[in-house]
Amino acid sequence: MSASSLPIVGIVPGDPNGIGPEILIKAWMDGKLHAVCRPVVIGDAMIMQDAISMLGSELKIQLCQADQSLSEALSSNASVLDLIQAAPFAVSSVRRGQDMADAGLVSGQWLREADRLACEGILQATVMGPISAKSMDMAGTLHDIASHHPTDPAYLLLRSGPLVIAHLTDHISLREVSAAITPAAVHRLISKLSDSLVQWGLPNPRIGVAGFNPHATGDEEDQAIKPAVVKAQTEGINVEGPISPDSIFRHCIEGRYEAVIAMYHDQGHIAIKTWGFSGNNVVFLGPAYPHTTVAHGVAYDLAGTGRADCSMLRNAILNAACLAAGKGFHEESA
Amino acid sequence: MSASSLPIVGIVPGDPNGIGPEILIKAWMDGKLHAVCRPVVIGDAMIMQDAISMLGSELKIQLCQADQSLSEALSSNASVLDLIQAAPFAVSSVRRGQDMADAGLVSGQWLREADRLACEGILQATVMGPISAKSMDMAGTLHDIASHHPTDPAYLLLRSGPLVIAHLTDHISLREVSAAITPAAVHRLISKLSDSLVQWGLPNPRIGVAGFNPHATGDEEDQAIKPAVVKAQTEGINVEGPISPDSIFRHCIEGRYEAVIAMYHDQGHIAIKTWGFSGNNVVFLGPAYPHTTVAHGVAYDLAGTGRADCSMLRNAILNAACLAAGKGFHEESA
Repeated sequence: MSASSLPIVGIVPGDPNGIGPEILIKAWMDGKLHAVCRPVVIGDAMIMQDAISMLGSELKIQLCQADQSLSEALSSNASVLDLIQAAPFAVSSVRRGQDMADAGLVSGQWLREADRLACEGILQATVMGPISAKSMDMAGTLHDIASHHPTDPAYLLLRSGPLVIAHLTDHISLREVSAAITPAAVHRLISKLSDSLVQWGLPNPRIGVAGFNPHATGDEEDQAIKPAVVKAQTEGINVEGPISPDSIFRHCIEGRYEAVIAMYHDQGHIAIKTWGFSGNNVVFLGPAYPHTTVAHGVAYDLAGTGRADCSMLRNAILNAACLAAGKGFHEESA
Repeated sequence: MSASSLPIVGIVPGDPNGIGPEILIKAWMDGKLHAVCRPVVIGDAMIMQDAISMLGSELKIQLCQADQSLSEALSSNASVLDLIQAAPFAVSSVRRGQDMADAGLVSGQWLREADRLACEGILQATVMGPISAKSMDMAGTLHDIASHHPTDPAYLLLRSGPLVIAHLTDHISLREVSAAITPAAVHRLISKLSDSLVQWGLPNPRIGVAGFNPHATGDEEDQAIKPAVVKAQTEGINVEGPISPDSIFRHCIEGRYEAVIAMYHDQGHIAIKTWGFSGNNVVFLGPAYPHTTVAHGVAYDLAGTGRADCSMLRNAILNAACLAAGKGFHEESA
């Protein structure tokens, strides 16, 4: 594959007060990114230069225009850090280890710019470095994490080995989940998941839908989950459910499904974290392009030390590239 | 330890139409029971004789009186099946593979008799063979499974290796769980679990209490779980919580707790079944004595063939004996 046919993956460093900029430089330097994609940073040049200097790296920043000329402008040389200048953030404003509204604001602005470029087809995938939810909440930019299209919900998809789980609901009270389980909502996620898996390179994926109640027996199953599954089946989607929540994840591990839909945050998170989540794939399902991220946070205690591990961010970038190229999930190498 | 100091464990065969009687005979025949307990069957002699004949076993039934003379009456010879005759069930009434009200009725009667003898101190522990919940529901005896004292709730405790989970609620709709999480209910289970673990031979056990909502943040945590944990701490119980539900089971696997309290059926069942439940320990927490059971059902397709595996029932008996003797959970051997 020639370099110019590789997907262009936009990488947003995450919060400037955290480890994001430095782990992005470390991930770039190890040279594995350019074999599978053409990476480009969406952020601030001086913040990235600061991280380069702190790490004693030889990387040179090349500024690129955020338009259709990008494909030709990108360097294929891994010693050049291609960067699209988005909202500026002064190095003098950095307060490593602190939650701050202005850091949350710029985190959101960089994400919004990456989303815009991906929606225009200039980027084929995006990656979000570690953000501070608290800073973004202070700045009112939390909704930029997965999408700024509020009518089009985004769903968190986690993968660890054979276990692939998309979540219908996320950080809402468990007693409010029942009302969120409607035939339309469940059907929308089944369709979205099926379409995404096909686009990502898994033809005719088998999807399992978890029930909500013990042994998948209750009103939510009868009135919402089952009708949604039946409708999706008539549309030709290879989907089953509702399946007993305490069995479905084990079935997925054993290969019965390519992916499972969980009704609520802990249904999926208990399964994947208790089984053993290595954080190898975190994807937002919702944007029209692959949008991946890391499973860790800003690690304020390590910010500025150069000691933070870049492997999850590198993996998120490689995963975005694999999904955009229709090669399926990236398999983490040891 | 002389035979007469070993705990007397009453074994209820379970549903006469299922595999219970035959796996009980198989478990008895392999000779491992008598090393750790003095087993005695609570059921019908002719049903057990039928299973003995079907298996071609040499076991001889010895009828014992259900009173304080039992300890002297029990044979220490594993080729003798000691039995207390409870409610009769005619062999001619057996309909292998069928749910039936009269089978559910006698299942409950046998359990009630075993509970009575344990409450009187004649038995030190009880074991329930595989029952048919449908037959017992038809007969109105389902509440006999763990206790016939309706004011004293029983809780299901599952163990697989280092993962020990007691469930605050069981087969109720998930949207009804929130109302069941009261300070009194959570505190009662913490106390019961702590007392039971100590009785079973785990001094000063560390207990973790799961939250209800994502990241253990919500009204149920603030208004019920936290106050209950604080009260238990002031009473000297080594307990923490509420802990994020997606992390607490992994912490238990890693040795931070001897046991975890789950707020609802699937919170615990997803964790233990996804992680890998071998069914090695199932205990009802509630009766004043150890009351264990199997993780499988009546296996109607195998009933009467002699081919059903007795290892889970044998393990449930050995576990009841270990807990009654204060030796901790029985470790299954390969």
